[in-house]
Amino acid sequence: MMTRTIVLAPDSFKESLTAKEVCEALEAGLRQSLPDATFVHVPMADGGEGTVQSLVDATGGELRTTTVDGPLGDPVQATWGVLGDGSTAVIEMAEASGIGRVPRDRRDPRRASTRGTGQLVTAALDAGITHIVLGIGGSATNDGGAGLAQALGARLVDGEGQCLGPGGAPLAQLAGIDVSGLDPRLAEVTVEVACDVTNPLCGPQGASAVYGPQKGADDACVAELDAALAHFAQVVARDLGRDVGQTPGAGAAGGLGAGLLAFLPHCTLRPGIDIVVDHSRLPEKVSGAALVVTGEGRMDSQTRFGKTPKGVADVAAAAGVPVVAVTGALGDGAEILYDEGFAAIFPVLCRLAPLDEVLADGATNISRTARNIGAVLSLGAVRPSA
Amino acid sequence: MMTRTIVLAPDSFKESLTAKEVCEALEAGLRQSLPDATFVHVPMADGGEGTVQSLVDATGGELRTTTVDGPLGDPVQATWGVLGDGSTAVIEMAEASGIGRVPRDRRDPRRASTRGTGQLVTAALDAGITHIVLGIGGSATNDGGAGLAQALGARLVDGEGQCLGPGGAPLAQLAGIDVSGLDPRLAEVTVEVACDVTNPLCGPQGASAVYGPQKGADDACVAELDAALAHFAQVVARDLGRDVGQTPGAGAAGGLGAGLLAFLPHCTLRPGIDIVVDHSRLPEKVSGAALVVTGEGRMDSQTRFGKTPKGVADVAAAAGVPVVAVTGALGDGAEILYDEGFAAIFPVLCRLAPLDEVLADGATNISRTARNIGAVLSLGAVRPSA
Repeated sequence: MMTRTIVLAPDSFKESLTAKEVCEALEAGLRQSLPDATFVHVPMADGGEGTVQSLVDATGGELRTTTVDGPLGDPVQATWGVLGDGSTAVIEMAEASGIGRVPRDRRDPRRASTRGTGQLVTAALDAGITHIVLGIGGSATNDGGAGLAQALGARLVDGEGQCLGPGGAPLAQLAGIDVSGLDPRLAEVTVEVACDVTNPLCGPQGASAVYGPQKGADDACVAELDAALAHFAQVVARDLGRDVGQTPGAGAAGGLGAGLLAFLPHCTLRPGIDIVVDHSRLPEKVSGAALVVTGEGRMDSQTRFGKTPKGVADVAAAAGVPVVAVTGALGDGAEILYDEGFAAIFPVLCRLAPLDEVLADGATNISRTARNIGAVLSLGAVRPSA
Repeated sequence: MMTRTIVLAPDSFKESLTAKEVCEALEAGLRQSLPDATFVHVPMADGGEGTVQSLVDATGGELRTTTVDGPLGDPVQATWGVLGDGSTAVIEMAEASGIGRVPRDRRDPRRASTRGTGQLVTAALDAGITHIVLGIGGSATNDGGAGLAQALGARLVDGEGQCLGPGGAPLAQLAGIDVSGLDPRLAEVTVEVACDVTNPLCGPQGASAVYGPQKGADDACVAELDAALAHFAQVVARDLGRDVGQTPGAGAAGGLGAGLLAFLPHCTLRPGIDIVVDHSRLPEKVSGAALVVTGEGRMDSQTRFGKTPKGVADVAAAAGVPVVAVTGALGDGAEILYDEGFAAIFPVLCRLAPLDEVLADGATNISRTARNIGAVLSLGAVRPSA
């Protein structure tokens, strides 16, 4: 192990440590057992919460904060990032238009708007970037991306030529769309949308039916919003010539998937982990390494489906490098992960304690686990036979 | 790792698994990662609770059950063991005379007697054994071993020639000791007492002052019992010619240490872990092994002082074999154990859950941890450089 390279590519441990901090804790522990190893930090994410922070950290970029309209119009301070290349922005829609921005008793999916997310795109354009990574998890909205489109200069009007108000409900009155005022800089910008769902815009698997209830929609509201989005898709098809209603992922984030595909000239939906793998340049960093250590605050049978540790394990497998994971908690069915490329998965808990204490002890627990892993790795290496 | 031998030498995980069951869980997990390794099971103990079970399991012996007098005279079913050699008995005094045998509201250190422990010694003699291992932790008694001596045939009389009643308090009336009726078979039997404390019989560090309160003694009772034991020691010295009051360990188990030294012809006090190491023949089993895995339900800074994992680590260190531990919970200060011969110490917890659930999941958690350890060991072995 004297001169081996170990790549540290964890997600954040939510409510405890950022991915970068997890990297630091892992190195601190491993270094005690493997003092001469070389450590490469690649803070990861899967397109969800923490993606801005991790990609900024992974690329040596910087965070920015912009005041935009929250889901219900109240101003919010939204943090986004410019990556180390200086030309790529990373935005999480939840920062501007997320469910966490609305107190439970004020949730209103009929009125909640993605306008603030559009304002973040404008801020990125103002910063001169040419590529945008957009994470769209955790939305409070069900407006098909109409608010984002309006913020970027599109006109959505009713039968009397009046601009539509915010939210999904007014889309039922949509009579026409005019994109002549759309920000011309969008023509020169590529947008990758981190999207891990395949829901269409409407119908029983659509945005309103599947995700509406968790945003506060009752049955009648779901029906109203589903009909409004269906009408929106028809007008989009007629006026913009784009048929996005059935595109897998169109129903993501209250239909923001559809709106992005409809209004942005160069937009693609991709699994979030794939986008992060690319922008963090994980494959080249893993190539030739002796070991990859990944992890996440919780791992369970769902980790197989697009979560960071699985994405990292796939990259490592392609490079022939073994992968070990650390995690705050193992959920039911996690043993299936042994068949998904993980050599070992170590929980970092060391005793039963109140959750807030465990979250506060994250770095200590991760470091100790890493030290143990490094020690056993050394045993194997120094005693290859007996 | 193809043909390597791994010695599994854990203590029990209290309230969850016996040491033998821990061995089985460890092997089940390790075998998944190291299918061709050879596993040697050495269920361990430190002379405290679980010593009978572990030594019986380690040597292929058998358990016996004998009905004896409990601390307050009520009959109790006491389990003891005959080791695989057929000539060694292992007895835990707590089975007959332990604090766990007396409900909290009936605790009475003035009257509690070691008679039942003496009856277990008699049962062992009846079985034809020639060597006894006696664990003396967890006593309810403060009688200086008087009850044990009486059960074995000694006469302890007051000024009127009447036999003393049970407990430590009557020793204040002790006028003479007659050992002519002592079981003659004791002359042919060697007794090793597992004793990890160095308390003298009396005084501020003596049995009554240090351990009396946890057995229910208030200040007046401590003073009464301390004086009674001091008087007992004087009579022992006068009538038996043995001065045991100041012997380190005489104050163990309510002075049972003193009584054993006074009445048994061939008796030695030794650290419990040393006795178990000898009888389990751990050193010869560890010799030439590739790895030793030990552990205990809880490990903390106190593990250094005579606990099983430390004893196992010392044996392994002497043989130049690395040691890894698994534990149910890591207590404060456990990191000091890295300086005590443990290469790594893995807690087996995988999530926050109610304690009873965690205890019920012991085997699963240990097996998963062992599998992880084996997997990392394999990584080190198969990739010694890169």
